[in-house]
Amino acid sequence: MLVLDMPRDVSKAMMAKLIRFLELRGLGTKLVPHEDGFFLLLVSGSPSPKLKERLRSLSFVRRCVDASDPFPLASTSLIKGPRRIRVGDAVVVGGGVPVVMAGPCSVEGEEQIRRMARLVKEAGASVLRGGVFKPRTNPYSFQGLGLEGLRIMSEAAREEGIPIVTEVMEPSQVGVMYPYVDVFQVGTRNMYNYPLLKELGKGDKPVLLKRGMSATVDEWLQAAEYVLSEGNFNVMLCERGIRTFEARTRNTLDLNSVALIKRLSHLPVVVDPSHGTGRRDLVLPMSLAAVAAGADGLLIEVHENPSRAKSDGDQSITPSELTRLVGMVSVLSASLGRGSELALVG
Amino acid sequence: MLVLDMPRDVSKAMMAKLIRFLELRGLGTKLVPHEDGFFLLLVSGSPSPKLKERLRSLSFVRRCVDASDPFPLASTSLIKGPRRIRVGDAVVVGGGVPVVMAGPCSVEGEEQIRRMARLVKEAGASVLRGGVFKPRTNPYSFQGLGLEGLRIMSEAAREEGIPIVTEVMEPSQVGVMYPYVDVFQVGTRNMYNYPLLKELGKGDKPVLLKRGMSATVDEWLQAAEYVLSEGNFNVMLCERGIRTFEARTRNTLDLNSVALIKRLSHLPVVVDPSHGTGRRDLVLPMSLAAVAAGADGLLIEVHENPSRAKSDGDQSITPSELTRLVGMVSVLSASLGRGSELALVG
Amino acid sequence: MLVLDMPRDVSKAMMAKLIRFLELRGLGTKLVPHEDGFFLLLVSGSPSPKLKERLRSLSFVRRCVDASDPFPLASTSLIKGPRRIRVGDAVVVGGGVPVVMAGPCSVEGEEQIRRMARLVKEAGASVLRGGVFKPRTNPYSFQGLGLEGLRIMSEAAREEGIPIVTEVMEPSQVGVMYPYVDVFQVGTRNMYNYPLLKELGKGDKPVLLKRGMSATVDEWLQAAEYVLSEGNFNVMLCERGIRTFEARTRNTLDLNSVALIKRLSHLPVVVDPSHGTGRRDLVLPMSLAAVAAGADGLLIEVHENPSRAKSDGDQSITPSELTRLVGMVSVLSASLGRGSELALVG
Amino acid sequence: MLVLDMPRDVSKAMMAKLIRFLELRGLGTKLVPHEDGFFLLLVSGSPSPKLKERLRSLSFVRRCVDASDPFPLASTSLIKGPRRIRVGDAVVVGGGVPVVMAGPCSVEGEEQIRRMARLVKEAGASVLRGGVFKPRTNPYSFQGLGLEGLRIMSEAAREEGIPIVTEVMEPSQVGVMYPYVDVFQVGTRNMYNYPLLKELGKGDKPVLLKRGMSATVDEWLQAAEYVLSEGNFNVMLCERGIRTFEARTRNTLDLNSVALIKRLSHLPVVVDPSHGTGRRDLVLPMSLAAVAAGADGLLIEVHENPSRAKSDGDQSITPSELTRLVGMVSVLSASLGRGSELALVG
Repeated sequence: MLVLDMPRDVSKAMMAKLIRFLELRGLGTKLVPHEDGFFLLLVSGSPSPKLKERLRSLSFVRRCVDASDPFPLASTSLIKGPRRIRVGDAVVVGGGVPVVMAGPCSVEGEEQIRRMARLVKEAGASVLRGGVFKPRTNPYSFQGLGLEGLRIMSEAAREEGIPIVTEVMEPSQVGVMYPYVDVFQVGTRNMYNYPLLKELGKGDKPVLLKRGMSATVDEWLQAAEYVLSEGNFNVMLCERGIRTFEARTRNTLDLNSVALIKRLSHLPVVVDPSHGTGRRDLVLPMSLAAVAAGADGLLIEVHENPSRAKSDGDQSITPSELTRLVGMVSVLSASLGRGSELALVG
Repeated sequence: MLVLDMPRDVSKAMMAKLIRFLELRGLGTKLVPHEDGFFLLLVSGSPSPKLKERLRSLSFVRRCVDASDPFPLASTSLIKGPRRIRVGDAVVVGGGVPVVMAGPCSVEGEEQIRRMARLVKEAGASVLRGGVFKPRTNPYSFQGLGLEGLRIMSEAAREEGIPIVTEVMEPSQVGVMYPYVDVFQVGTRNMYNYPLLKELGKGDKPVLLKRGMSATVDEWLQAAEYVLSEGNFNVMLCERGIRTFEARTRNTLDLNSVALIKRLSHLPVVVDPSHGTGRRDLVLPMSLAAVAAGADGLLIEVHENPSRAKSDGDQSITPSELTRLVGMVSVLSASLGRGSELALVG
Repeated sequence: MLVLDMPRDVSKAMMAKLIRFLELRGLGTKLVPHEDGFFLLLVSGSPSPKLKERLRSLSFVRRCVDASDPFPLASTSLIKGPRRIRVGDAVVVGGGVPVVMAGPCSVEGEEQIRRMARLVKEAGASVLRGGVFKPRTNPYSFQGLGLEGLRIMSEAAREEGIPIVTEVMEPSQVGVMYPYVDVFQVGTRNMYNYPLLKELGKGDKPVLLKRGMSATVDEWLQAAEYVLSEGNFNVMLCERGIRTFEARTRNTLDLNSVALIKRLSHLPVVVDPSHGTGRRDLVLPMSLAAVAAGADGLLIEVHENPSRAKSDGDQSITPSELTRLVGMVSVLSASLGRGSELALVG
Repeated sequence: MLVLDMPRDVSKAMMAKLIRFLELRGLGTKLVPHEDGFFLLLVSGSPSPKLKERLRSLSFVRRCVDASDPFPLASTSLIKGPRRIRVGDAVVVGGGVPVVMAGPCSVEGEEQIRRMARLVKEAGASVLRGGVFKPRTNPYSFQGLGLEGLRIMSEAAREEGIPIVTEVMEPSQVGVMYPYVDVFQVGTRNMYNYPLLKELGKGDKPVLLKRGMSATVDEWLQAAEYVLSEGNFNVMLCERGIRTFEARTRNTLDLNSVALIKRLSHLPVVVDPSHGTGRRDLVLPMSLAAVAAGADGLLIEVHENPSRAKSDGDQSITPSELTRLVGMVSVLSASLGRGSELALVG
């Protein structure tokens, strides 16, 4: 894949002419507007060395990069990192200090989510998580409170001044959810849902892209590329454990992937030790391990009374356990020279 | 899960009253209309033995079944099988004789698909397969000819009098594709795409539901249950290989799953040895093995010139190899007492 | 890997001189005597084209083959197949007709094994299987009757005129077991036990090499190569299922591997549907599927009263089910033109 | 499993009588001498509540524990932890401070191993690792320098006053290697080699038991139980990565298993990030993550010139990188309150 980097003031006519020129030579093109104002033109196929030379010499081409990875925009071959992504008004993911996103698996009611918003903020978390559209393996399981749940979650969070992350399941929901959501979460079952990824790529809201249950890192980064190639560069990857043969844990949290992505990509990585272990007693040690491996954030399930949760109670920790976790993560992060002000929300 | 089987003439008022009664007791309900005219009312939660007794004694309840599997409609606990599914005017999947569905991975152009329609029919296949919306791991790979491709494929098939199966990727496509499609294929990446499955459940067209890359049989049957629980019972399961550590093959075709599903469910099973092996030289032996394990059909990639295919050339066989395959499958099927007239299309 | 094929009458002095010559040039050598009397000299490292030319021109080198696979002796690059392996006096594995090996998981006592020897023979099996040294995951589980069990099994089989296959667990057992055993089985846990494989390679008794639980086909064939490279070419590979995420079956029988090995190697392949499924009700369909995929034999667990077996009762079929299985395998095999006289034991 | 804990002064006659008594009742028994002088009698089968009561009341039974895990000796149900294991004269594994074991994959020669012994000690490692018997997938790969290599490694280490860990491959090697070895390593291919584990259980030298490539934690702990149940309680578990679908790394380091074992067992856990990633650039972050997850030690491959290593060069770090790693592990460990004096060797 050849990538041409062109300044914001290149004329539309010029660009159209170039694209026509390339397509006449049997090459594929994809024009990607970057938030900073410049344009990236991706050229696929096999341009000849001579043609490459000619492209390089064009006056309005600032750089012409041969990207070897199948995810040129997500890789560091073109854009250096690490990328800092703004969430809500005051939170930055990728800025060195790990960001803790916490909350219940499911929004269960207005009172619950209000209390949780307050408690997770007090415990030092910076983002409120909570599911309202729940993709469940079984069609007869609780499927979430839907849009009404989103409205009450959004209001509860606004009152506490904390941004929210919640899952979106299909392209047609993106527009409806947009006003209420700070980060769109794409769940593990939807990592390969390319129409959804493309739709999210057309917006500007940050996307938290969970890894598919058995996806390779390359497939995951190519899924991110679906979002980036539509123009939205605000993608955070979220490791949530992979399926293995182990029966004692729900999934196997793969921290190799975290360390690896920090080398392959400029995108930040968040780790979900709740789904990644499925066991309350492993959430703390695996949170520490995730940060030590380089994670930019943590996604933690919290419930006041885990044994009564409508879903995923076994893996939820209590608010007071969250307080301790935030404290230890802060100490660990500071010892590694990455800053410790985890709780700063504005 | 408790399932109540009620005749077609039960009054709407009666049904509404019953549902209200159950929901007041904290139980979940789901009313499923069956194509044969009766209704199934699924009751989730934990009804007391006394309540069960009462439900059983209702005059308009023909049967009241306690289904232990998480897929009551797909299992044999309620509906005995094997289910026969009509495809187009003249083909039946699940009728004993294995049905061969064959064609190119992608529709590449009008002339190609016309020729292929004729060739696969001549070779003895009963259904034409071909992709027009292609979910590709990489955003820059060929993504299919889209709706225009579907139109030309549909016309080519109609001229040969052969029904078609093609992949649908998102809920909003279902309506647009409906007039042209005989079987909607749900690809491996979309097995967990529950909004898509629900949408397909609302129609009546047969669905070919591919197994997720690393899905368990229970997850797969629950995905089928998403379609069935909306009222569409025309679901064929398609084994297409699972991801394993083997590098010599693209996937590992799991025939245990075929033999297992024939015991767990009334739904027919189709096997895709092309994706299940990724190697042209393994398609024939694995087709025979699939039929010996109990498969009701085969999905085979065919290309006139495999080395030039736009996608999946390595696993495509030629039309003449298909002729030989249909012949051997026929002999094998006959030897097992399952009939041999594979090629009959009306 | 370069392989030189030299006739039986090449002088020892000549060979020693050649080996010295090669080793002085930094190349590795391994001399393998073949049962048919010729010698194979394997040369590793990177001989120069000029050196290769010189080796090819040596008068006592019949052929000089560049083997690209990491298992030159197991592959077909040097030795064409299919290989026929004699078991006991009258059974041949690899001769077209599938051979059924059947018996209990464990030898539990003299009377039991006598009766089983008779019953499996009557049912049409050609080889008696039964474990006396049992590698168990848990140190406190029943570990088999040991050498005493082997003696009574051997005697029971001799009386019925049927050869036996049983598992060996460590190098030091090979000599002790030798007089009683017709085929040494290497279990899935020992596929990587290279000292054991080498020890078996020094003898002439056939080896049934089970695939490691999560081994790739290449690792498996390289394990076979450990036996072959010591001079014993009588290796049968045994597919017994791989570990996957499926919970409804004990393992996932991989028939891709069977079809694949028939293309990669001259060695025969036996399939164990008992361990490969772990379910009595799947043994018959998967036996048929195995033969359709190309298997040269089947390894079946049989128990008169499966629910009372000391181990693996869930996957054992009864003698009368075995009779039916042998019959159907015979019909299927005949329909594929591979012969049907499965039961012939001399 | 019922476990009786009896003091050291219980008479042999008493014990024999008790064992006879239990076996007459159809129960299995296994007597395990503990290094601290007491005896553990494991009773398998299903003793009646009445019999349990009677056993509890025996004067020479200090405790009678019902162990629910299949690994009663490795679990914390009987023996509380954490266990501290002495390695050589001055190193303790499991004492809070992580122990770094480092060295080359293979011993390649006298000079190399001498230099490495000095360099890894200077870098702050406490134990020298190095392979002399190498179990290789391919029979024609370099198989190690054998006993001669062990002798020179042992001498090099003695000169530096640093203990060694090296792999043993078969039962018959244990005695021969004994005088030279401080810790016997059991490799991933031998985790299921029960004869080897039993042989090591009869000695007193510490055992570093690597996890099988695709083993579950329960299988791994049961493998440890094979060693413990012969009387050797000096077992360290070594996580070295599991096989997954990821192609960018050699294995997937599973730190869930580390956090899990710290909860299930009293045995210490060592982590091998070299094999667990297969990439030099991931060794440091994954070492930090391992310690944060609770690892008691690290096993690191070091080579002066990784690109020239006879095996595993891609995953070896240089001595100067090791120095940095030891420093960062020390800081991290101190921040978690676990001590920082990693390098103390006497």
